[in-house]
Amino acid sequence: MFPSVEAPSESARREAVARHEQLTKPLGALGRLEEIGVWVAACQGTCPPKPFARPRVVIFAGDHGIAKHGVSAYPSEVTAQMVANFLTGGAAINVIAATAGASVRVVDMSVDSDGEGLPDQVTAHKVRRSSGSIDREDALTAEEVVAAIEAGKAIADEEIDGGADLLIAGDMGIGNTTPASVLIAALTGAEPVAVVGRGTGIDDQAWMRKAVAIRDALRRARRVSADTVALLRTTTGADIAAMAAFLAQAAVRRTPVILDGVIAGAAALAAEELAPGASQWWIAGHRSVEPAHTLVLDHLDLKPVIELDLRLGEGSGAAAALPLVAMATRVLAEMATFADAGVTEKPE
Amino acid sequence: MFPSVEAPSESARREAVARHEQLTKPLGALGRLEEIGVWVAACQGTCPPKPFARPRVVIFAGDHGIAKHGVSAYPSEVTAQMVANFLTGGAAINVIAATAGASVRVVDMSVDSDGEGLPDQVTAHKVRRSSGSIDREDALTAEEVVAAIEAGKAIADEEIDGGADLLIAGDMGIGNTTPASVLIAALTGAEPVAVVGRGTGIDDQAWMRKAVAIRDALRRARRVSADTVALLRTTTGADIAAMAAFLAQAAVRRTPVILDGVIAGAAALAAEELAPGASQWWIAGHRSVEPAHTLVLDHLDLKPVIELDLRLGEGSGAAAALPLVAMATRVLAEMATFADAGVTEKPE
Repeated sequence: MFPSVEAPSESARREAVARHEQLTKPLGALGRLEEIGVWVAACQGTCPPKPFARPRVVIFAGDHGIAKHGVSAYPSEVTAQMVANFLTGGAAINVIAATAGASVRVVDMSVDSDGEGLPDQVTAHKVRRSSGSIDREDALTAEEVVAAIEAGKAIADEEIDGGADLLIAGDMGIGNTTPASVLIAALTGAEPVAVVGRGTGIDDQAWMRKAVAIRDALRRARRVSADTVALLRTTTGADIAAMAAFLAQAAVRRTPVILDGVIAGAAALAAEELAPGASQWWIAGHRSVEPAHTLVLDHLDLKPVIELDLRLGEGSGAAAALPLVAMATRVLAEMATFADAGVTEKPE
Repeated sequence: MFPSVEAPSESARREAVARHEQLTKPLGALGRLEEIGVWVAACQGTCPPKPFARPRVVIFAGDHGIAKHGVSAYPSEVTAQMVANFLTGGAAINVIAATAGASVRVVDMSVDSDGEGLPDQVTAHKVRRSSGSIDREDALTAEEVVAAIEAGKAIADEEIDGGADLLIAGDMGIGNTTPASVLIAALTGAEPVAVVGRGTGIDDQAWMRKAVAIRDALRRARRVSADTVALLRTTTGADIAAMAAFLAQAAVRRTPVILDGVIAGAAALAAEELAPGASQWWIAGHRSVEPAHTLVLDHLDLKPVIELDLRLGEGSGAAAALPLVAMATRVLAEMATFADAGVTEKPE
């Protein structure tokens, strides 16, 4: 389904490490900013790396049948309302992305609305309305999951062909932490109770309903967990399946990604199964307060750039980290060397 | 020496908390970004807060007599070389500040050079060349420490009168983690060994020399630690004394500050003694790997915005956090409300 993923450039990585030794600072004094700059150079295959020309956030929107069963603090109608909010620029991700120098696209994969009045760029890849309630039925049919995966690949291709040189996958969907948590538990072997979080801010009653839903859905998921496409079909929705394919295809296309929180993390786990090695092209933007997200970070061996107790989704945590990734890139590219600046190097 | 410090606006703080409840996101979903936005509104005394018009980094440069005794990995001549590097834009802080939208000024408080050829804005406040070796003599005379404090106040006034609405104090000075560590130990009651760090990257031999220097200097410092001005005179240098006054005066002038690492942290501890309550006007940009910095954060009850294992100084860790502070400000100011966007609120 995906061609094999190449590794980022080892020679550019070595050049970047060597360049950091020549810049006018004690070696290592910029800590993780140095490591991030090296990673960007390796992904770009060139040192010094280039500033990002078109960082791009793509929000995958979809509703979830499970939301009918009281697992969220908000009703499903909010998903379509928030899609409209993204388009008029009023959501958190719009402001955060603008501050960080990124543009935002939203794609309606499976919002429970007819999509009337939305631009073609938003609805062109829509697979269906909502998803099956995963505690009792499959989220998608066999045809739908393939359509969602093809859509995710196509969206990545559209963006990269359009000049995007750094990608962020965001999510919008009332109820979506439930399928994401099930997917994470299925792929990491975690117990249900270890992945149940508060989502948008549920109370104890809803938390218990969500725990039961996750337990039941996980029982269905475990039967197919060795087959990633079947797992996406059973357990997720067109939004998360498309996001997984988008993340896999970004790696196939040698394009770096900043991962967001628990939804993008769940999709990333599946993407690494679909396209082994894809995670070399990803950096973790932040650590979400959702407990399942830490399982993702540990499983993929990713260390988040920021830890600010975010739990919004929309790509907000990844976009919040973007200025630091851009900074790390520019530090490596633009600082003077000891020789340039006439600064004495550390004596051996 | 400093008039009393007023608190940030309680009414603007309350308005900001109430506004966050109306923005199109689950309340609290942006975690610390929400708290930071509230703090900015309180400092500005208005809600919604205004984007920062002129964030400004001021680097306080000075040499230290103790550097002659093998406590640093670099020779003292590097301080003057780095001042030149700041002026031509090749240092890390130049690139980081540019990425973050801040401008940079460097002031030569006590660099061990004649300052020939440097612009007046850099040298106008110079107090002396270098400082006494604090393990055996006072850093400054009684006149010099007063001159340094007056200079720090004047520099804050110049910047704020020039339109700066967010300030960062950076440092440059070979050997300056030694006086900073002594000052921190004196003001927090820590043992010498708890504050000895690797600075620019010293080896074990230099670490032992530095530990002895800190022990000896701390013995001299403890005699005067109840008198902050005497402590600055005995233990620091014109750079750190001016930085302390700059941080105190920023608070007097109701101007928010992002604190950098261990040198700015040491100056901040002294500033809080000089102008009690000043710390309400500060946020911690980052956590340095220098062990004494964590003592500062604990003592002032500040939680860093980022933790990226930085240990460079120059204001780099604070400037690296600036995009997140700017983002938090814009989120609070620019996001749509539930009513504006027609998004359904969380049912009670």
